Amino acid sequence: MSAAEPLFERIALIGIGLIGSSIALNARQHGLARHIAIATRREETLNRAEELALGDSYHLEAAEAAEGADLVILCVPVGACGAVTKEIAPALKPGAIVSDVGSVKGSVIAQMRPLLPEDVHFVPAHPLAGTEHSGPDAGFPELFQNRWTILTPVEGTDPAASDRLKTFWEGCGARVETMSAEHHDLVLAIVSHVPHLIAYNIVGTAADLETVTQSEVIKFSASGFRDFTRIAASDPTMWRDVFLHNRDAVLEMLARFSEDLASLQRAIRWGDGNTLFELFTRTRAIRRGIIEAGQDTASPDFGRRATPGADEKAPS
Amino acid sequence: MSAAEPLFERIALIGIGLIGSSIALNARQHGLARHIAIATRREETLNRAEELALGDSYHLEAAEAAEGADLVILCVPVGACGAVTKEIAPALKPGAIVSDVGSVKGSVIAQMRPLLPEDVHFVPAHPLAGTEHSGPDAGFPELFQNRWTILTPVEGTDPAASDRLKTFWEGCGARVETMSAEHHDLVLAIVSHVPHLIAYNIVGTAADLETVTQSEVIKFSASGFRDFTRIAASDPTMWRDVFLHNRDAVLEMLARFSEDLASLQRAIRWGDGNTLFELFTRTRAIRRGIIEAGQDTASPDFGRRATPGADEKAPS
Repeated sequence: MSAAEPLFERIALIGIGLIGSSIALNARQHGLARHIAIATRREETLNRAEELALGDSYHLEAAEAAEGADLVILCVPVGACGAVTKEIAPALKPGAIVSDVGSVKGSVIAQMRPLLPEDVHFVPAHPLAGTEHSGPDAGFPELFQNRWTILTPVEGTDPAASDRLKTFWEGCGARVETMSAEHHDLVLAIVSHVPHLIAYNIVGTAADLETVTQSEVIKFSASGFRDFTRIAASDPTMWRDVFLHNRDAVLEMLARFSEDLASLQRAIRWGDGNTLFELFTRTRAIRRGIIEAGQDTASPDFGRRATPGADEKAPS
Repeated sequence: MSAAEPLFERIALIGIGLIGSSIALNARQHGLARHIAIATRREETLNRAEELALGDSYHLEAAEAAEGADLVILCVPVGACGAVTKEIAPALKPGAIVSDVGSVKGSVIAQMRPLLPEDVHFVPAHPLAGTEHSGPDAGFPELFQNRWTILTPVEGTDPAASDRLKTFWEGCGARVETMSAEHHDLVLAIVSHVPHLIAYNIVGTAADLETVTQSEVIKFSASGFRDFTRIAASDPTMWRDVFLHNRDAVLEMLARFSEDLASLQRAIRWGDGNTLFELFTRTRAIRRGIIEAGQDTASPDFGRRATPGADEKAPS
């Protein structure tokens, strides 16, 4: 694509964390935009983005970056979308596409839509990609490769605007799917939000024990626990906002999770091995499905290999 | 070590799944035994072990493998330890070391100890290592590298026997720690058993939804859920036995987990962002501790990279 005309003349990325910086790297690498304008509120982060040469212009004011842009993407925590929209609204070019990357869509739409001028195209989006790292240094171009980006166009969205955004995300390596915001928020509650919550929760529970020390938890973590700690190392602000803004779907899925867990607890208490065995067999099939769908590696233990400790030499 | 005298003349591995086969490969590679006798009840598995050349002799009868062995290791699900001990007890050589690899120690000791003759050394052990794969093909020599093996010697255990078993495990690449069976079972409940239970549980909850289809769960799993499916693909028999045999410690830790989760649920319902943010910040520190202790990789996403789907070509 880089030899041809870029898809957009000017894109503005408001927020330059893991997602924003990964978009910037893709836009550059695949020639998706002639000019990449980057805005972030913190001077230190903006300077770092410039050192990393992530864009073409750097702005402390979101409105300044958004001015004249054909595509503006909010890459900020879900809770900040309303405030940022208020800032950029007066600067938006007629016909511009405005989008976001938030993990919750209903709330983002409720926050942004009333504040946007009539003459821009609002296409909410959510790239289902990330790592436990955050900030402008965390971005890398392969982040979206083979991952899904979900578009949740609102009523009255111009299909041509949706199509252009789809082309943009495909240019970043993503697969694109469209669904309603309401359904998106339900799906994400179970595939992402509740898993993150229970990961955070078990790490907290382990840290608070009196009978098992924190150093034992760390030392013996390889037996299962450490997988949860990776997820529980995700960005605190982003995740606080996710839970506050997808409250209903999260509470609904959490209630089901807790009911199911209570039933397993009962099976353990009463020595009902069949109930346990039946579930543990069923769950293996889902894992196989994920590997067949190309959404995870088939290598044992994610292909991880043991690394010698920094604090201790491994014996022999 | 391979040039010198082997540590043991004859070892017997009763059970040849992921752990048994990984021990066999280590014993061979590091010259820890002159003769490796392998026993398993299923003919098909025994033939496969022989095809893989995991041992020196192959037996359908555990007692036959144990006969004359200096070290006998039970590598069977925790629930089978009593029955296997009954079989091998009459064949055990005086002075032999008898050990196991079970994830629960209190129950294993209660099952095995009364059945063992007075003139053998019983040293229960648990290598904290594994993957989601099982069976004789799943073993690999690096499995124990830099991982902990916990010994839980019972009252009256000859320290020389414990030391020899420690040397054996160090020869397999493991670090070795000693603690009481009771404490082991508490530690493992929080670092391993409850994490496995909640992973199995959330995968089950997701599979049972009416509002989100199973194919959506699979498709969008990369946003967090897939990590849980790896753990929930672990061996069903082994894990059923773990929960039935470490009942008290698991129920205790599970009660704490559920209490903590209820408090997070309440924070979400009432919009208490501070409680969420405070926990999400605290859990990051534990992740750092695990990486510093050399028990996980610092690479984002476990160093995984996207793999193109088998069923679908990734766009562009």
